[in-house]
Amino acid sequence: MNASILTIGDEILIGQITDTNSVSIARHLDGAGIVVREKCSIGDDRGRIVAAVERLLASSEVVVLTGGLGPTKDDITKKTLADLFGCRLVHNGTVAAHVERMLAERGIAYNELNRSQALVPDGCTVLFNAYGTAPGMWFERDGRVLVSLPGVPYEMEHLMHDEVMPRLRARFALRQTVHRTMITAGLAESMLAERIAPWENALPPYLKLAYLPNPGAVRLRLSAYEVDGRKVAEEIDRRFEELRRLIPHYFIGYERASIQELIHGLLTRRGESLATAESCTGGTIAARFTAMPGASAYFRCGVVAYSNEAKRDVLGVDAPTLERCGAVSEEVARQMAEGARRIARADYGVATTGIAGPAGGSGAKPVGTVWIAVAGPHRTVAMLRHCGADRGQVIDRAAAFALGLLRDEITAAG
Amino acid sequence: MNASILTIGDEILIGQITDTNSVSIARHLDGAGIVVREKCSIGDDRGRIVAAVERLLASSEVVVLTGGLGPTKDDITKKTLADLFGCRLVHNGTVAAHVERMLAERGIAYNELNRSQALVPDGCTVLFNAYGTAPGMWFERDGRVLVSLPGVPYEMEHLMHDEVMPRLRARFALRQTVHRTMITAGLAESMLAERIAPWENALPPYLKLAYLPNPGAVRLRLSAYEVDGRKVAEEIDRRFEELRRLIPHYFIGYERASIQELIHGLLTRRGESLATAESCTGGTIAARFTAMPGASAYFRCGVVAYSNEAKRDVLGVDAPTLERCGAVSEEVARQMAEGARRIARADYGVATTGIAGPAGGSGAKPVGTVWIAVAGPHRTVAMLRHCGADRGQVIDRAAAFALGLLRDEITAAG
Repeated sequence: MNASILTIGDEILIGQITDTNSVSIARHLDGAGIVVREKCSIGDDRGRIVAAVERLLASSEVVVLTGGLGPTKDDITKKTLADLFGCRLVHNGTVAAHVERMLAERGIAYNELNRSQALVPDGCTVLFNAYGTAPGMWFERDGRVLVSLPGVPYEMEHLMHDEVMPRLRARFALRQTVHRTMITAGLAESMLAERIAPWENALPPYLKLAYLPNPGAVRLRLSAYEVDGRKVAEEIDRRFEELRRLIPHYFIGYERASIQELIHGLLTRRGESLATAESCTGGTIAARFTAMPGASAYFRCGVVAYSNEAKRDVLGVDAPTLERCGAVSEEVARQMAEGARRIARADYGVATTGIAGPAGGSGAKPVGTVWIAVAGPHRTVAMLRHCGADRGQVIDRAAAFALGLLRDEITAAG
Repeated sequence: MNASILTIGDEILIGQITDTNSVSIARHLDGAGIVVREKCSIGDDRGRIVAAVERLLASSEVVVLTGGLGPTKDDITKKTLADLFGCRLVHNGTVAAHVERMLAERGIAYNELNRSQALVPDGCTVLFNAYGTAPGMWFERDGRVLVSLPGVPYEMEHLMHDEVMPRLRARFALRQTVHRTMITAGLAESMLAERIAPWENALPPYLKLAYLPNPGAVRLRLSAYEVDGRKVAEEIDRRFEELRRLIPHYFIGYERASIQELIHGLLTRRGESLATAESCTGGTIAARFTAMPGASAYFRCGVVAYSNEAKRDVLGVDAPTLERCGAVSEEVARQMAEGARRIARADYGVATTGIAGPAGGSGAKPVGTVWIAVAGPHRTVAMLRHCGADRGQVIDRAAAFALGLLRDEITAAG
């Protein structure tokens, strides 16, 4: 079964916000075996909403849309959909009582605009929004479904999970979608593709292969849509096992989790601890760990040592080494990792020092030159990586390489 | 002039990645006065690519698309566009030499798949991709333009900036788009809308008002498309000045740049320096500063002091205070900010300490409780904020409050 996602709001089209609602909705639908054919974003404009809904309903059994349900004049989705589906707006007592109660809790008076939120099209099924004042709406026409949800991400998320997905599962006979992703490292995309061509060419037509190149790694995803899930999952496992035997030295693992999630799991299980010393990555590595619930069990301390003085005074890098080798050097990276480990009394210390650019490069050390080091209970290792030319790219790649080296060292020590 | 954005890739439709390319492209186009009418995402499917390009070219003078330009079989955009525009794929010596050089730098052999990247449609203008191996392409038909860019964000970004925007400015007579956003706090969206209704109703039709509700604030954006920029900007200033007099107690400021960009500018101009001491925000504040080119001029050192030991040993928070008040307290926040400022010998220190959750909350200090402090040349200030219940939300809001307090203190000291 096919679905489309429509997100409404001028703020999306001018680039004022990043549309994450459609990502979340896509995951819900894909996870239930519904094939998302298209995502589309348009502005708060009556004519464009009507045209997009009609176009998407012609090609998909289900359309999920978000946005434009607020109480103010610029929010026109509800009125537009009511007209499109030939409904009248009628007062809904349940919604009215809920809105009044929510506002009262925040000390807000119930006014004419809030009253308008309790008006719903008489031909739709109202989806109760426990976390906000704008209800969701479920319309049907000629066996097709249009669902309209508020644009506030957590309200949308709760409605998808609690109201929309159970109804879709009950309403349609859904098949299954299977995705599995293998991570490889050490072969560039083109070399990998050349190497595995015979394997790729022998794939059955219902298995779709995608190459997802990343800094330092190429991921391979096999996908099958609307199939018997268990049987196809076994087939994908067999195919990936064959592939693994073809490229034994480049196989890293399967993507079930991000590399920081893997490290998070390893350190948590072993009761070991971590400290970071970042120069060019500027706190990015620390922020990736601390974004995960439970990080405080192992994450002791991070230092963003941007200046030479901070490297010396906070991390204990010695001044003659800084003078002799420069801040971007193997020796300084090693001392930073060991310094972080020492001051935090942690089991592992990971360090980055490099030139993020755009300024600061030289002939010998161009922008993108990064030294990475990991200090562990038994040894300290360091490596040099060239991480590109764009500042954001250098930060991302350096963080990815550092996390890779850290994972390898933790695994080797275990 | 109208434009549409098309992003291609199954990974977008299954929710494996968040499409940020279309956000960046939207900002480039909007900033040049080009009106983005639609964003659309589809899978790597020949028929769907053809249908989407034809549909969007019928409604927009310019279509910018990304994705599907890699060297592997799942990347079919180039061949599809060549057929669509009636072109043959021909060998391009400049692209070939560039790809060969890029690969040689990384020690990668130049193979048949890389050679295919040097094939370009003979009817298009090749856009040189200095940062990657897949060139951009500029097609024209009946006075309309289709631009195809690689999906790797950095490569796309450089091509938009260096190649696409200068050509669009030269090729079309562009008018201007003006957006200005006012930040209000203290009135719920519906109450604000009721209060300012007479002002809203008196707006001229070419000024479009949008309400953007946020945690703790409602932003009001006035937008005008394809106008005389300077004249309309003055008109918007007058209208917002009227509005400000209507709601003097709820007016917070204007959103011109992100708050870290404002602080970056202030510190750079004044030659002052900054250090951070983060607990619950876990490096997010440091990472926001260090992501900006030129941050090394003022950013000295950041400490992510997650454990009590790190707060004590690295930042010098005194042990009896930690014991007596707990890590999430005004006293500890103040000492963290002062400690960061002292160890980094910086002009300003900013600190956060709070409970990001989901665990660690208590009746007196629930999840979301965050103390924020700023230490400056003349004084240290602290404030308590409740930052929500979701871990990511707490980190984001705490960072936003901390940056706000830092900006206020820098401004007050100046």
